[in-house]
Amino acid sequence: MKWLRYSVNEQIFTGYLKNNILHAIDGAPWDRWQELGLKHRIDNVKIETPVIPPTFYAAGLNYVKHINEVAHSRGETPVIPGAADIGYRAVNALIAHGDEVIIPKDAGEKIHYEAELVAVIGKKVKNISEKDAHSCIFGYTIGNDVSERDWQKSDRTFFRSKNTDTFKPMGPWIDTEFNIKEALTRVNVNGIQTIEFETQAMLFSIATFISRTSQYATLYPGDVFWMGTDGTSPNIKDGDTVEIEITGLGKLSNKFVRES
Amino acid sequence: MKWLRYSVNEQIFTGYLKNNILHAIDGAPWDRWQELGLKHRIDNVKIETPVIPPTFYAAGLNYVKHINEVAHSRGETPVIPGAADIGYRAVNALIAHGDEVIIPKDAGEKIHYEAELVAVIGKKVKNISEKDAHSCIFGYTIGNDVSERDWQKSDRTFFRSKNTDTFKPMGPWIDTEFNIKEALTRVNVNGIQTIEFETQAMLFSIATFISRTSQYATLYPGDVFWMGTDGTSPNIKDGDTVEIEITGLGKLSNKFVRES
Repeated sequence: MKWLRYSVNEQIFTGYLKNNILHAIDGAPWDRWQELGLKHRIDNVKIETPVIPPTFYAAGLNYVKHINEVAHSRGETPVIPGAADIGYRAVNALIAHGDEVIIPKDAGEKIHYEAELVAVIGKKVKNISEKDAHSCIFGYTIGNDVSERDWQKSDRTFFRSKNTDTFKPMGPWIDTEFNIKEALTRVNVNGIQTIEFETQAMLFSIATFISRTSQYATLYPGDVFWMGTDGTSPNIKDGDTVEIEITGLGKLSNKFVRES
Repeated sequence: MKWLRYSVNEQIFTGYLKNNILHAIDGAPWDRWQELGLKHRIDNVKIETPVIPPTFYAAGLNYVKHINEVAHSRGETPVIPGAADIGYRAVNALIAHGDEVIIPKDAGEKIHYEAELVAVIGKKVKNISEKDAHSCIFGYTIGNDVSERDWQKSDRTFFRSKNTDTFKPMGPWIDTEFNIKEALTRVNVNGIQTIEFETQAMLFSIATFISRTSQYATLYPGDVFWMGTDGTSPNIKDGDTVEIEITGLGKLSNKFVRES
């Protein structure tokens, strides 16, 4: 089942998709809900971020090639993390599939995408074991962890480099049936593929991150875990469109526009 | 005016305090609201966190003595930040005045308080100037940025050291009339004062942080800015009660309990 948040004349709906028709519901997909009896063609709505997470978790470094390439580009020795230490991002930065990423005027040239699988939590849990961790996942979506590398290096925190408004495209939907096995993550810039990697080739699995994080933090329905990316990105310029595909899940596409 | 969130029989209310009586409202304090006609004695309610912020901003290092003492305790040279780079925390960790801070079983001995003034945003703003920054502040409250120093040193991110459940007491209320001039921040551990500092002796002012952050992030009503702390903390142990007073604003008190 594919779940979306969307708007019609600025009114927000939650609904599921069936044969290009959105069926609006009352309630939350992971909770009790009922049909509203309202239907919309997907072509006639504005797609919104599929969820606004209470807490926005991000694995950060979680694919070996990304860790190596980032370190080399900085002239540093790669350090493979020894534990699944979760990071986090800020909700202000989220935008939807189809929205524009706005590059601030004073940003440098090193604007990079990071194509990420996102797990969406569907149950309140604490201290969940790795074995049971998948039982609290409602479904999956796609995230683009847009980063400004000069700020990431110069600033004391990741706020500006990672959480500037519009730097966190997520969507288009939450798929409850996605199977990570054999899935590939691909990125196209202006229609030309720049990278492809096995989605599941993570250093620490989704179950490991969820279990470890839940030893310290209660997870709530709607929380998201962004699972990290592989490889590196070319510099994304004004007018470029970045499309992230995770096979079997969907495509997240956003145009980048530099503020003038 | 003092604004609280509170609960009666697990039903949550927002209200203002007048002569120890809470007057419940419908709406948000920073928006249109009306009296519900319901009153409660403050002694008869459970106080909740005064706001659940969409984004939880934290200045981190913002008082010189804290920066020096932290560096010395780590055997490092103090580095005074050159810019007001905002950090951020996670909402799962928030608890209210009077709630217990739960120290996880596997935490080390270096459990520290950080007594902080908190500015609560009341308006949606972007690109606000320093001169105008105070116009978007609705009021002020108190925060305790509880930290586990071994994890802060060992982990790749601040998640566990700063955002473990219960590590972010905030409250008891939002005061719309607080005046930072001449205010003192004091901490008592089990009734004995451990530190006192001038609340306004910040490296970067609240206006500087808000203005700079808003150059990159849209600020929303309910967002909070935790403004950093001065000095250092003794190790807080099982059974200790930490009370933070900001004169003219109020007292935030929480007992610390180690998980057994």
